[in-house]
Amino acid sequence: MAIKWYGFWRSLASNRIRTALALKNLQAEEVSINLLQGQQHGDDYRKVNPQRVVPALVVDGAPPLFQSLAILEYLDETKPEPPLLPRDARGRARVRGLAQIIACDTHPMIVPRIRNYLEKELKIDEPARNRWAQNWIVEGLKAVESHLANEPETGRYCHGDAPTIADICVVSQVFGAQFFKADTSGIPTVMRIFNECMKLDAFDRAAPLKQPGAPKELTH
Amino acid sequence: MAIKWYGFWRSLASNRIRTALALKNLQAEEVSINLLQGQQHGDDYRKVNPQRVVPALVVDGAPPLFQSLAILEYLDETKPEPPLLPRDARGRARVRGLAQIIACDTHPMIVPRIRNYLEKELKIDEPARNRWAQNWIVEGLKAVESHLANEPETGRYCHGDAPTIADICVVSQVFGAQFFKADTSGIPTVMRIFNECMKLDAFDRAAPLKQPGAPKELTH
Repeated sequence: MAIKWYGFWRSLASNRIRTALALKNLQAEEVSINLLQGQQHGDDYRKVNPQRVVPALVVDGAPPLFQSLAILEYLDETKPEPPLLPRDARGRARVRGLAQIIACDTHPMIVPRIRNYLEKELKIDEPARNRWAQNWIVEGLKAVESHLANEPETGRYCHGDAPTIADICVVSQVFGAQFFKADTSGIPTVMRIFNECMKLDAFDRAAPLKQPGAPKELTH
Repeated sequence: MAIKWYGFWRSLASNRIRTALALKNLQAEEVSINLLQGQQHGDDYRKVNPQRVVPALVVDGAPPLFQSLAILEYLDETKPEPPLLPRDARGRARVRGLAQIIACDTHPMIVPRIRNYLEKELKIDEPARNRWAQNWIVEGLKAVESHLANEPETGRYCHGDAPTIADICVVSQVFGAQFFKADTSGIPTVMRIFNECMKLDAFDRAAPLKQPGAPKELTH
């Protein structure tokens, strides 16, 4: 299949797509939508994704797919190897649940539109905005840590010994923790798995700072 | 299967579980966790769900499942009729994407922990907190509206003529719009589908104000 997708080097949700494409060895053209410059609000991109967020993914010229977890599941269904979900329903529920702690309850708190609203509408200064981001990042990753540290399904990765969409989401959020200098001392299992994932070429190549347009190092 | 689950009458994510159980005609025992009184932070519930949020769902005494969308997918996989997802991968991606616009990018902005942080940490007054909630509710539902109003897959419900997890999530968020008196004038297709869903007994019985412990009407 011919894949074109819209992302941004710094976007954590885009990082998930990039990692999944790499794990599945799928070739894809990435179109950069510069979120820091507000390109997501332009008329051109609005036609791609009316929600004006990245990622969006186009397969063989069909209408764009949207929302990162929905795209990950689509890729897993249409290119099943290697699988990104366990084979049993309970395992899939656990992996999806871990992924959703990040994708639903953690990452959305720190995206540009939220940070902009805090700044422009609520007049929250930058230190307090950073504390906001750090707070929700740590809360979310600690919830994941509680599962990973206490449940027998945890293996080399979040669920057994092969990477799943849970690892993809957790790794993306650890990048977010690094962007915002969040305290990761309370999440040793998360960090152990992050480091394990980063040994894999697919995760390494997908890292935000390795993308075109990214700065050499973060100067937040 | 014997199902026990933890929810709260006002919780929009709990509403999704309640609706899915009703659509699939599954009997289940609902345990109320009073979010307004902070029962989710108690030691007992922390053992059920370390993230300290509802819902959580226990099947046959096994470890609790968590995150509403993961639970919906689990119910759909283990009790396939009637299906809550389309049969084709593209259709599933669209339905999951619509559900995630709500479950990832809309609803998490207005949950108790966020409203508490705005109030206690950022000293945002109640009118501004309500504008915050209204803003994200309207943004999310308008993104859904753009899809529903412009895509041929939209039918009597969000995707064709049978309810899916997209309808379950959209309906839950319209309840949220009502709680916060958000302006629904710009989302006619969403409201048309909400009203269509509410004609179904499963959606009607699951409505927040019809649950034990709920007030007769909302006095926000």
